[in-house]
Amino acid sequence: MFSLPTNLKKIALFLERLPGIGQKTANRLAFFFLRLPDEDLENFAENIKNLKKKTKLCKKCFNLTENDFCQICEDQNRDQSLITVIESVIDLLSFETGNIYNGLYHVLHGKIDPLNHVGPYDLKINELLERLKKDKNIKEIILATSPDMEGEATAMYIKSQILDLKNKNLISKNIKITRLAYGLPIGANLEYADYMTLKKALDGRDDF
Amino acid sequence: MFSLPTNLKKIALFLERLPGIGQKTANRLAFFFLRLPDEDLENFAENIKNLKKKTKLCKKCFNLTENDFCQICEDQNRDQSLITVIESVIDLLSFETGNIYNGLYHVLHGKIDPLNHVGPYDLKINELLERLKKDKNIKEIILATSPDMEGEATAMYIKSQILDLKNKNLISKNIKITRLAYGLPIGANLEYADYMTLKKALDGRDDF
Repeated sequence: MFSLPTNLKKIALFLERLPGIGQKTANRLAFFFLRLPDEDLENFAENIKNLKKKTKLCKKCFNLTENDFCQICEDQNRDQSLITVIESVIDLLSFETGNIYNGLYHVLHGKIDPLNHVGPYDLKINELLERLKKDKNIKEIILATSPDMEGEATAMYIKSQILDLKNKNLISKNIKITRLAYGLPIGANLEYADYMTLKKALDGRDDF
Repeated sequence: MFSLPTNLKKIALFLERLPGIGQKTANRLAFFFLRLPDEDLENFAENIKNLKKKTKLCKKCFNLTENDFCQICEDQNRDQSLITVIESVIDLLSFETGNIYNGLYHVLHGKIDPLNHVGPYDLKINELLERLKKDKNIKEIILATSPDMEGEATAMYIKSQILDLKNKNLISKNIKITRLAYGLPIGANLEYADYMTLKKALDGRDDF
């Protein structure tokens, strides 16, 4: 059987490991690389090599950064009293693209997922609790983990840990703990909404 | 607005140029790179750098190769009398994965597509005609361009050029020109077949 040239094949095999990319797509992408200018490939290769050397986690919120602290934590114009707890930096990008939020973040880097052997200590939860103990500006924690079983469990766990700190008088009893609203997504068709979403939308209904 | 670390951003922007990859997927893939071992990234970067240096086109059939001639053209066990004309090396892979074909190939590297400024001279059509003139073993040309307007036009054009060579007695009049069969794909549901495919399947019906 015919096999691709070694370099091309290795690239295709590498791409196949990426999420959402199967064998056919990996081949197609590798072939596309062949058509790109030498310079672009050279630059891409350099960026890949330096990626992990130059990318670090923010010491405060665990967002990605090239310095000790990330752009968001360094920004004094942001509301320092508000922390949104998210699972990943991708979630942070979703918040940031819309310019809908002006507080700080805390990136957990995952969610509690026993089936995949991810426990609370694999996430940046302790770091969040330490942050709450130290930073006396914080007035509200928005739990923005995903609306699935693992995200829900993670939010519940974090809430219990924060309540524990409150009971031990390690943080102010006035810190609010909130969770993102559930309901119909904007632009959705009622016909296609699952009953759990509909129930949440009903429960959360508001004056109009 | 928050922006990603430079290296990560450059990688995401590069990936966004690949076919079928939008901004969100590009970000997701770039983030995935962060989680891979250093060594794998290093190797991938090296392969990208060397890709174009080490990958050439076969001097006979324009398949990809690391040498002057490709693995298939070098293989003397293959039927030297049969050439399948295809648009791309990806199509060649489709034939080769099933082990359904034992002849040679000729890769056009595209199809005639006036709207995208691709004419017959941008493809390896002249090289095919020269090959036919030189190689006296060839008995059949299978035109396997895609079953769309451009693929059809390309097949028609190549056929007319080969007939021209026959008329000028530059190649044997016995060389057969064939085209892949049209019809229902295996496993398809009749319900979802478009009427053109159904018509072709009807026209090409056979004793059972």
